[in-house]
Amino acid sequence: MRKELSRLIELDREVGLLAHIDALLGWDQQTFMPSKAVDERSEQIAYIESLAHDKLVAPEIGELLASLGSTTAAPAGDPSLAAREGAYLRVLRREYDRAVKMPTELVGELAGATSLAQAAWIEAREKNDFPAFAPHLERMIELKKRQAACLSDGKGSGEADASPYDALLDLFEPGGTEASIALVFSGLRRDLVALLGTIRSRPQVDDSCLHRPCPAERQAAVSAWLMGLLSYDESRGRLDTVAHPFTTTLGVDDVRITTRYLEDFFPSSLFSTVHEAGHALYEQGIAPGPEYARTRLHDASSMAVHESQSRMWENMVGRSGTFWKGNYARLAELSGDTLRGVGPETFVKAINKVEPSLIRTEADEVTYALHVILRFELESELIAGRLAVRDLPSAWNAKMKDLLGVVPPDDASGCLQDVHWSAGLFGYFPSYALGNLYAAQFWSAMKRELPDVDSSIESGNLKPLLSWLRANIHEPGATYLPGELVQRVTGSSLDPSHFVKYLNEKYSRIYDF
Amino acid sequence: MRKELSRLIELDREVGLLAHIDALLGWDQQTFMPSKAVDERSEQIAYIESLAHDKLVAPEIGELLASLGSTTAAPAGDPSLAAREGAYLRVLRREYDRAVKMPTELVGELAGATSLAQAAWIEAREKNDFPAFAPHLERMIELKKRQAACLSDGKGSGEADASPYDALLDLFEPGGTEASIALVFSGLRRDLVALLGTIRSRPQVDDSCLHRPCPAERQAAVSAWLMGLLSYDESRGRLDTVAHPFTTTLGVDDVRITTRYLEDFFPSSLFSTVHEAGHALYEQGIAPGPEYARTRLHDASSMAVHESQSRMWENMVGRSGTFWKGNYARLAELSGDTLRGVGPETFVKAINKVEPSLIRTEADEVTYALHVILRFELESELIAGRLAVRDLPSAWNAKMKDLLGVVPPDDASGCLQDVHWSAGLFGYFPSYALGNLYAAQFWSAMKRELPDVDSSIESGNLKPLLSWLRANIHEPGATYLPGELVQRVTGSSLDPSHFVKYLNEKYSRIYDF
Repeated sequence: MRKELSRLIELDREVGLLAHIDALLGWDQQTFMPSKAVDERSEQIAYIESLAHDKLVAPEIGELLASLGSTTAAPAGDPSLAAREGAYLRVLRREYDRAVKMPTELVGELAGATSLAQAAWIEAREKNDFPAFAPHLERMIELKKRQAACLSDGKGSGEADASPYDALLDLFEPGGTEASIALVFSGLRRDLVALLGTIRSRPQVDDSCLHRPCPAERQAAVSAWLMGLLSYDESRGRLDTVAHPFTTTLGVDDVRITTRYLEDFFPSSLFSTVHEAGHALYEQGIAPGPEYARTRLHDASSMAVHESQSRMWENMVGRSGTFWKGNYARLAELSGDTLRGVGPETFVKAINKVEPSLIRTEADEVTYALHVILRFELESELIAGRLAVRDLPSAWNAKMKDLLGVVPPDDASGCLQDVHWSAGLFGYFPSYALGNLYAAQFWSAMKRELPDVDSSIESGNLKPLLSWLRANIHEPGATYLPGELVQRVTGSSLDPSHFVKYLNEKYSRIYDF
Repeated sequence: MRKELSRLIELDREVGLLAHIDALLGWDQQTFMPSKAVDERSEQIAYIESLAHDKLVAPEIGELLASLGSTTAAPAGDPSLAAREGAYLRVLRREYDRAVKMPTELVGELAGATSLAQAAWIEAREKNDFPAFAPHLERMIELKKRQAACLSDGKGSGEADASPYDALLDLFEPGGTEASIALVFSGLRRDLVALLGTIRSRPQVDDSCLHRPCPAERQAAVSAWLMGLLSYDESRGRLDTVAHPFTTTLGVDDVRITTRYLEDFFPSSLFSTVHEAGHALYEQGIAPGPEYARTRLHDASSMAVHESQSRMWENMVGRSGTFWKGNYARLAELSGDTLRGVGPETFVKAINKVEPSLIRTEADEVTYALHVILRFELESELIAGRLAVRDLPSAWNAKMKDLLGVVPPDDASGCLQDVHWSAGLFGYFPSYALGNLYAAQFWSAMKRELPDVDSSIESGNLKPLLSWLRANIHEPGATYLPGELVQRVTGSSLDPSHFVKYLNEKYSRIYDF
């Protein structure tokens, strides 16, 4: 390996080490930190993040990237090594460019405005007072437009269809564009609205069994059983309980998940655990070769690919009739009296009940993407300046009526429900729906290659599925852009028809149409 | 406040922030970290510690200390402010001088040798193979002598009685000297051996009630009750379980303690919790004024003063007849069936049983200091070169016979039992015994000033005691050297007669002499 590359990797790993330390500070804050420690913890996190930023924008990294970029040919010999090196330099250059393009002043303004906007959002949501939040949202949009201008500097010029939103989207879905996502979502929107109409014309399923009481320790036993079935490696992670479950990577051998035990709604912990374990299996499985261990290549391809993994385990395995056909008896046993007298068919229908609702995070598989499409359409209009912040509530409600047939009674359960915009996360929402689309497309490819996978899943043997995911999706890490990955793994570009077909097949059985 | 001082405090706080981040990395490793994360965690810790060291030895700190030191008079105005500033500069200068006096090469050699010595020690102790450990111990002694030479450079010159051991001792007990400790310990040794002889001439107490089974959740309830009685602030800390209990400070508002639940020996958790809470009350109570918050003044006076606080709560409160007279009924209730039929007098005798034993960490209040004196005498001879490493086992066993009347059957339960020497902690052991001496001397002063404290303690009201400790010992933090602190608080220099008197009074009741 060339000396410049070794040095670059060394500097990159230092930034990675700080990112993992930062993750521990954040994990501890969510799980175990005593309440009054929050002020100093915020300082500790800000300090480490600022240090990591300084290390990333070090001139030496820029010089090494420039010198390695100018050697047009990668090292002779193994072509896969050369490709790996090219992929690595591309990823690191992207991160470096993003970091150096942001003026320190703007970073500071964004941090300050985000802090104020988040506090204002919490209060506005509590008091159902959108006008109180509106000036903060306007300020965030202004700053995000400035950020987009900095990030796209020298990149979008000459491309007629480059939008400021593209630059923000690229932070989460590298290579994605507003135009391409709009195209995908417009077809998806039509198909989902049609499917929802069909489902709503059918008799509703009964999900009352899901609301039977189930003690936390029973739910913990179910979580432990599922983590074992999924081959989540507890020597490289752990499960804790929090108010809002998440997964976080504190080291290449330390990927922790969280869940929550609601005693009157046990599916919350069941699907949280599977969802977060799905994220963690991806992180635990990334293996871009020892020379790139703990570098920027040792990372997910994108947020949407990450979400494809959590959603695949949660929905395509965890909400499938196939899985529960062979494994429901064990769930009934572990959960004690909760499911007494309930059969597997009733349970599978209950966990797949479709019902238009107001809140994205509580939505079923069919309506979830509609919530996301609504947010994508609104945030791209906000960033483009075609929608004024003051008109957001009415635009939100009109779209809810249009897409889901329900209208929020207030803004708290409408346009104030999500944390994202107050946190400056414009361009993040599409990842949630893209994740479902990737998951379905990967799933189709996997089933072509593993014709017997259904019988494995039914018998509780999830290892063939995991092995396939490891080899095709997890191990390369950030080697491929999401668009490249889906092409390599499935032989075609992103195609939402796999998701629509999956939903139609599944729900025609659940709702008998 | 002068500009130079403000800047110095700013730099100092940065080092402190890193120390607290380091503490989280260590705490998590001991409590919750998954097993395979250990390699990267070691790197994370080494990285943060090296960064903290670099920040501390920054030339700017040296320049600011020099410039502030040359202004002979502290700022005009409030004399206590001037004194506080003088104390602060003294503490920071001590830390800075220590750090800059250590050559980077020696720091590296010590880190490497310690790592090897600790691994060799674990194996040697397992296999009872002192000769396998001996070369590592020799190497550690050689390096510690070199460290001592660096640290005392330009300081001990001209002082006839300055020893290399003094420089090592000073790391834990600032201002302490080998000669003064040897003097204190020689009298203490004689008095303790005499007391032990008297006790051994009396009928032994029965402590079988302490070995009755007690479920972990019962012990947890006892711990929670005791933490409440001690006013341990759980909004600024938490209790977790580990193999070897400790206390650690992750922030000025984040002081965490640990305990362990042995189901066949519940006093282990009871006294661990009180001991660690005693350490934590000190840390939670340090308050050297807002301008010095989170500086080096926001720290303990010394390891021995720290130990005085843990030992005072553990022994002088937690093992006292006074406390249990009023609070035993609650313990019996919380511990379920464990203490059924056992009266408070039997319990108090049991928890105060004196018996010479081989292992320091399991020793009672009378023999504990003898274990420490033995280690002090041996390590000062090792550092002085008067004792060869190969002769350590026989010297150890001879002193055990001499001081405690028992001889270890093997080195594993003899000179290989403690981690300290393999970790390079020469000069640390005296703190354990000095802590007991300080505790007894503080206790005498407190009782003079709070004549009604016994009845408060008996009724479970520990607040008057805590308030006295806060005002006299906790709040000043590192403002005073331990010698200054004991003088201020008790009106005299360190005087072991308080401890000897305390033990004689207590054990004459327990053993009826």
